[in-house]
Amino acid sequence: MFFSRLELDRDKSRALYLQVADHLRHRIESGELACDTRLPASRVLAKQLGVNRVTVVNAYAELEAEGLVTTKVGSGTYVTAANETSVHDDQTPMPVRLGGPPLRRHWNAGQMMNEMMRLARQPGVLSFAAGTPASEFIPVNEFRRAINDVLRRDGADALQYEEASGYFPLRQVIAEMLQDQDIEVKANDILITAGCQQAMDIALQVMARGKDNVLVVEEPCYLGLLDLLSSKRITPVGVPMDEHGMRVDQLEQIILRHRPSLIYSTPNFHNPTGISIPLERRMAMLEIAARYGVPILEDTTYDELYYESKPLPTLKSLDTNDIVFHAGGFSKTLVPGIRIGYLVAPQSLQERVVTTKQTTDILTSPLNQRALHAYLESGGFPDHLKMVRTAYQTRRDTMLAAMEQHFPDEARWQRPGGGIYLWVEMPQPGPTATELYLTAINYNVAFSIGSVFSAGGYFAHAMRLNFAGCPPDEIEEGIRRLGKAWKELLSRSNTLAEPRRVSLHIL
Amino acid sequence: MFFSRLELDRDKSRALYLQVADHLRHRIESGELACDTRLPASRVLAKQLGVNRVTVVNAYAELEAEGLVTTKVGSGTYVTAANETSVHDDQTPMPVRLGGPPLRRHWNAGQMMNEMMRLARQPGVLSFAAGTPASEFIPVNEFRRAINDVLRRDGADALQYEEASGYFPLRQVIAEMLQDQDIEVKANDILITAGCQQAMDIALQVMARGKDNVLVVEEPCYLGLLDLLSSKRITPVGVPMDEHGMRVDQLEQIILRHRPSLIYSTPNFHNPTGISIPLERRMAMLEIAARYGVPILEDTTYDELYYESKPLPTLKSLDTNDIVFHAGGFSKTLVPGIRIGYLVAPQSLQERVVTTKQTTDILTSPLNQRALHAYLESGGFPDHLKMVRTAYQTRRDTMLAAMEQHFPDEARWQRPGGGIYLWVEMPQPGPTATELYLTAINYNVAFSIGSVFSAGGYFAHAMRLNFAGCPPDEIEEGIRRLGKAWKELLSRSNTLAEPRRVSLHIL
Repeated sequence: MFFSRLELDRDKSRALYLQVADHLRHRIESGELACDTRLPASRVLAKQLGVNRVTVVNAYAELEAEGLVTTKVGSGTYVTAANETSVHDDQTPMPVRLGGPPLRRHWNAGQMMNEMMRLARQPGVLSFAAGTPASEFIPVNEFRRAINDVLRRDGADALQYEEASGYFPLRQVIAEMLQDQDIEVKANDILITAGCQQAMDIALQVMARGKDNVLVVEEPCYLGLLDLLSSKRITPVGVPMDEHGMRVDQLEQIILRHRPSLIYSTPNFHNPTGISIPLERRMAMLEIAARYGVPILEDTTYDELYYESKPLPTLKSLDTNDIVFHAGGFSKTLVPGIRIGYLVAPQSLQERVVTTKQTTDILTSPLNQRALHAYLESGGFPDHLKMVRTAYQTRRDTMLAAMEQHFPDEARWQRPGGGIYLWVEMPQPGPTATELYLTAINYNVAFSIGSVFSAGGYFAHAMRLNFAGCPPDEIEEGIRRLGKAWKELLSRSNTLAEPRRVSLHIL
Repeated sequence: MFFSRLELDRDKSRALYLQVADHLRHRIESGELACDTRLPASRVLAKQLGVNRVTVVNAYAELEAEGLVTTKVGSGTYVTAANETSVHDDQTPMPVRLGGPPLRRHWNAGQMMNEMMRLARQPGVLSFAAGTPASEFIPVNEFRRAINDVLRRDGADALQYEEASGYFPLRQVIAEMLQDQDIEVKANDILITAGCQQAMDIALQVMARGKDNVLVVEEPCYLGLLDLLSSKRITPVGVPMDEHGMRVDQLEQIILRHRPSLIYSTPNFHNPTGISIPLERRMAMLEIAARYGVPILEDTTYDELYYESKPLPTLKSLDTNDIVFHAGGFSKTLVPGIRIGYLVAPQSLQERVVTTKQTTDILTSPLNQRALHAYLESGGFPDHLKMVRTAYQTRRDTMLAAMEQHFPDEARWQRPGGGIYLWVEMPQPGPTATELYLTAINYNVAFSIGSVFSAGGYFAHAMRLNFAGCPPDEIEEGIRRLGKAWKELLSRSNTLAEPRRVSLHIL
């Protein structure tokens, strides 16, 4: 039998799922379970071992977090290629020239994100990898003034404890901003968080309180959300996207099959694809969510970064059933480093989100909240947004033009109406984004590989480029380098006698 | 049969434990299950319902979080007195005069904390309730200078994204501070967090990843930790304390019985009791923890607030097995509102704590981190600490003297060597802290009732007083008012013909 040797210690000196994971890890690392081996379905293995199916699901999740296996939606769990990131070491020696530790074999999404951040800061590298907005537009002096005004006005009050829900005048200003978007909301409905990421963390803590939670995500999906799910042992189930975003026609089946705790969606200028969802799909999504009582977590991080026309109404503004968590922030539009975001939860859950926020970190810095409030009250934000939109639009168009000029003819992309990302699809068959990444680093240019944005291990032939973070001349130079790396890689691939073993998933 | 009417929906449209909780809630709220009814042992009810015992444990935990039942360690789970907070409404009309919503019947610890915070801010109230340090010692001008220096020096870099682990120079300074306490630590071992609370949240996220987690806590215990456990569905199991802190002689039995994920302890100037643990008990705790492989989470929030002699060595400095999470911060000693704390995890878990931090809120405000670093580098912190220690020592002695003068003779307390709290035990039989609280509010004085600090529902006859937050004249006046309220309550109790129904647990 496949698992005849697995003896579990029922006395729980170590949790059962970890014992199962330990056993599988050992057999994968010893090579006994070869790359691409399909592991038994969780139900089957559970029966074989005489454990709850959930134990096996968790064991697989543990191994997936370690990069040892990959779950493909609707297909199964497979042993990940042990050497898929060492293509170059095996075949075409090409050491990474940058400082720091060598690239690791098994990375989870969080480690990948760290590596991207590290690369983005290496001197000489033009990086389109991170989700960083342009530093040159951060209104440093305005914030310095705001902080000084606040400390002069409020003194120690700005540095003491206060309500977990947030500084009331800031909540009022944010409520007014949301009211302008036709969201019916009062200051008391708003929870101030440490950035939009914490807003999502809190929504998850509130909604995914039981066990064996599943979350519906768009496929591909924001990396930080996938990583949050991984650290919380929540299983993401992807809904495919087309050029109009989430395939809402598949949502109902997925809900019926997986009974998710929550649906996560970025309807406007989606990360990583830049796609926006049309109105009728938004209505359909809300209708299905309401019918099955599954709340939606709406991520509005990029809503204010539109370049042609204003974004369509948010899900929250269309929500007549009070089932939408609305999360937003100021990191991409204004300033990442003061760490202020907000969450509007459904009414019945608002008390719980405040309690959760309080248990997590007591409150968000009252100084930073007051400084943001003072800045917003000064009236400069609308003009700042106009300026940023104009600049980012130019950068988008610069990058699109450079891609047109330098990328291989077979590459495909869309022109996003907002946000800060371009999503590029690479021809198949052909080198993967991982291979291109390792080549491009030698040309001192970096991007994000597509597979890190996937819940199901897809998008090995896609990449995400941040067009907003660098000035136009660097964009042109970076895309030129990337095009050159790409063409070099293609010509190298073509001269190989054998088709190369291709990495499918995580770097 | 007791639960003959409970039909569970096995199709899981709602989690089983919630279905069990729903059913019990209904029967409690309808009055069918009367106050003080002992619910069946989880094992018994699980058998009756044909569910896993864990399902029942979770259902009880849910109801406990809602304040509907109380678990007494070693005794069982009881329906909470439905009217225990409305003693006055029922018997001696005494409406709360303060603004805001009326006192609620069912509070969990988080709601209680919110209420304390709210009361602390009511005009005219002298509050010893919150854990707030004195506003007048927050070095506002020094921080303003530090922030301005940072923004002038670093510009937008201080407001951009950076590493999740924290601003490296700040980690270096904190490492040096810890090295001075004989902790072997390097800057890279330190994770910067949003206050000590987030350090503990992250340690819990990392250690309590499986299911049905149990955490060992001191009994009584820091409220914010209990609340964090409640929101994470982690069951606290209390170790009794004596005048030398945790009864380490009982730790082994508790570990064997409950197999906890972690032991939480505040060895120095414990909150709420002010007690410090002697060296031999620390060694014994470490030895037992290592023997059973249960890590310890050490909370050092109050370590620097010592008034006679320096605190004994931290658990981390004594730890030869690398099993201690060491959490600290600057909120009580320096400034709450910049929200900076730190976590030193065991080596093998350091990568995981950074990933967890990143998924939770990306990073702690780099501006605040740099401002704290600039402040610490300016060299003023040691003198600030000396000043605060002197002032708080005076306040402690002022409060002790006032208590001696104004409290009933039967009241008992210890003289803590540090921290900011006095723990007062009220005579039994006699009015509870809850009753005193409701009387004291009418005298415009507030404190924390003891039972909110209890994992097991104890300490109804205890209260915690923060002696650090108010200047000496307010301490004298507040304790005078509290003594007067207490004596009024005692004389009122004595004149009642019948002994009054006494609230045992949560307000």
